[in-house]
Amino acid sequence: MTTSSLTLAVDCMGGDFGPEITLPACRQFLERHPDASLILVGLPEALAKIDWPRTRVVTASEVVASDDPVEVALRRKRDSSMRVAIAQVKDGQAQAAVSAGNTGALMAVARYLLKTLEGIDRPAIATQLPNVRGGATTVLDLGANVDCTALHLLQFAVMGSALVSVLDERRTAPSVGLLNIGEEVIKGNEMIKRAGELLRAAGEAGDLNFIGNVEGNDIFKGTADIVVCDGFVGNVALKTSEGLASMIAEFLKQEFSRNLGTKLAAVVAYPVLAAFKKRVDHRRYNGAALLGLRGLVFKSHGSADALAFGFALERAYDAARHHLLDRVEARIAHAAPLLALGVAAPAGASTAPTNP
Amino acid sequence: MTTSSLTLAVDCMGGDFGPEITLPACRQFLERHPDASLILVGLPEALAKIDWPRTRVVTASEVVASDDPVEVALRRKRDSSMRVAIAQVKDGQAQAAVSAGNTGALMAVARYLLKTLEGIDRPAIATQLPNVRGGATTVLDLGANVDCTALHLLQFAVMGSALVSVLDERRTAPSVGLLNIGEEVIKGNEMIKRAGELLRAAGEAGDLNFIGNVEGNDIFKGTADIVVCDGFVGNVALKTSEGLASMIAEFLKQEFSRNLGTKLAAVVAYPVLAAFKKRVDHRRYNGAALLGLRGLVFKSHGSADALAFGFALERAYDAARHHLLDRVEARIAHAAPLLALGVAAPAGASTAPTNP
Repeated sequence: MTTSSLTLAVDCMGGDFGPEITLPACRQFLERHPDASLILVGLPEALAKIDWPRTRVVTASEVVASDDPVEVALRRKRDSSMRVAIAQVKDGQAQAAVSAGNTGALMAVARYLLKTLEGIDRPAIATQLPNVRGGATTVLDLGANVDCTALHLLQFAVMGSALVSVLDERRTAPSVGLLNIGEEVIKGNEMIKRAGELLRAAGEAGDLNFIGNVEGNDIFKGTADIVVCDGFVGNVALKTSEGLASMIAEFLKQEFSRNLGTKLAAVVAYPVLAAFKKRVDHRRYNGAALLGLRGLVFKSHGSADALAFGFALERAYDAARHHLLDRVEARIAHAAPLLALGVAAPAGASTAPTNP
Repeated sequence: MTTSSLTLAVDCMGGDFGPEITLPACRQFLERHPDASLILVGLPEALAKIDWPRTRVVTASEVVASDDPVEVALRRKRDSSMRVAIAQVKDGQAQAAVSAGNTGALMAVARYLLKTLEGIDRPAIATQLPNVRGGATTVLDLGANVDCTALHLLQFAVMGSALVSVLDERRTAPSVGLLNIGEEVIKGNEMIKRAGELLRAAGEAGDLNFIGNVEGNDIFKGTADIVVCDGFVGNVALKTSEGLASMIAEFLKQEFSRNLGTKLAAVVAYPVLAAFKKRVDHRRYNGAALLGLRGLVFKSHGSADALAFGFALERAYDAARHHLLDRVEARIAHAAPLLALGVAAPAGASTAPTNP
């Protein structure tokens, strides 16, 4: 293995298909990036035949299953491919880890091994969704945290701003919107109102480019570069979008395969439909960042194919190459007085609703 | 005006376009339903020329604007077309009211005039969304309530079941799913967990056909006939879906108008695209029910055109014709012991997080 400037650690066993898709994706990644190296982590038998350039194999004796409870991943499977891959980041062997393993386990193991950054209570999951302007909207949190406080949302905004300014160099001061509900009876609950105040203060202090409340439709309109929300809400929004996109694709397919005439129309329209399909292909948006940890970890969708997994590798590569971690830390340090202010705010306003 | 078995009161002034779209929709509605009558409510000048069969004009001197705060609609504009239309229901002149006016004002005025049903703390907004099975999924609440308790979600489930069993006669025991998040770190917050327990108990008592947790994508999969959620979450899911659908439509249009070749393909594919468009046409799903009041009120999207407003009228007509109000009341009465149980549960578990 030659020394190289940038190394990713890949959990080759995670996801619905494991090495069958992760290995081809890794191979293609190496071809695309002559400056990058990989550490492939997995069961010995799965990686026995690997003899690639710029590649090191690290074996693990266990695999975290998609339905393993967090406790199992954390306490019992201490030699899982997921954990060993993240350990490479902790030990400085790799600049980022990528896994398609189950989100709950990944977040728990990553948090346990890497710890959170100074000033961040809760790591968040951030992903990009396409918008009608032709760009992407970064949404967080997507399910790492339910019952968020206003302060958590402020932290998400700071971390999301760092992520976007790193991944898209044109956006040095990416805009942040707070996901809220619109014209309805009561505009947002108390936590959201308080979050709005904190974000506004951060905007005035120059820590954020806060543009105010946005609604669900603004995610795909591209009204803000970053949309922050509680993990429960973000997860529902993401999954609902996935469900709707699938339904629309299915309806389009059904209409074009209805009879001979429509099938003929499909042939004529094929290039257009292919271009359309490529444009809304969710695989291109695969690769969510686990933000707020002392190390970079990216999560691929469990059902990802090689193309999709490749995009997750690209995201990790871009983040590592642009020193995302340093940028997040710098942003947090800059916003530290405000984050402290958030902590000092009236307890009731920013405290999560928890069951006594 | 001939006496008729069923009368709807229509706020002709509400929505972005007012009488321009509500009046043609009303006219077409009357033609479709020879057994129905309408009470048209609006400014005298807007309704001056109306001389239709089975139609009575009731004038109002004010209009609730789309950006009027709830307080203005409730306390200042006491002779608004919205309020006068709902008053027709209260006075027994009409079996249901329909308005495209602003949701917050409509809910507040309806609640003030009609009061909530015995056993219901909070009215909810319910709408139908298409699913891939070719049916519709009823989702509530969509924004009338933020910071819901577990008991509220149980009430929504009971009301939603009544609505679906009324609107779709084939579904006598419609299935209910609780909107939750899936594999992620923490499965739902405490309120959702408690709601799950209450819904399970209701299922065991025969009051509901509860099938357990569902995720955002299940709305469009049609996993459950009814999906219950907090109004904040429901509103975000709905608006996000609207945003995504608009983006996809825009992308499809862009691809087909890219150049001469793609425009030609569009001509060939036109019948298929038209069929597809019709199938995903959100106007067909217009008309949300305000449930939990002592009278039927339906809300049309503010941006509805005549076709969409017509669908809202149809929903109100179907609900009135099938005695939705009685059915909701009967269901609530049946579930009363359980609803009382919910109230008696440990306070912390079902209490909304509010700012002290």
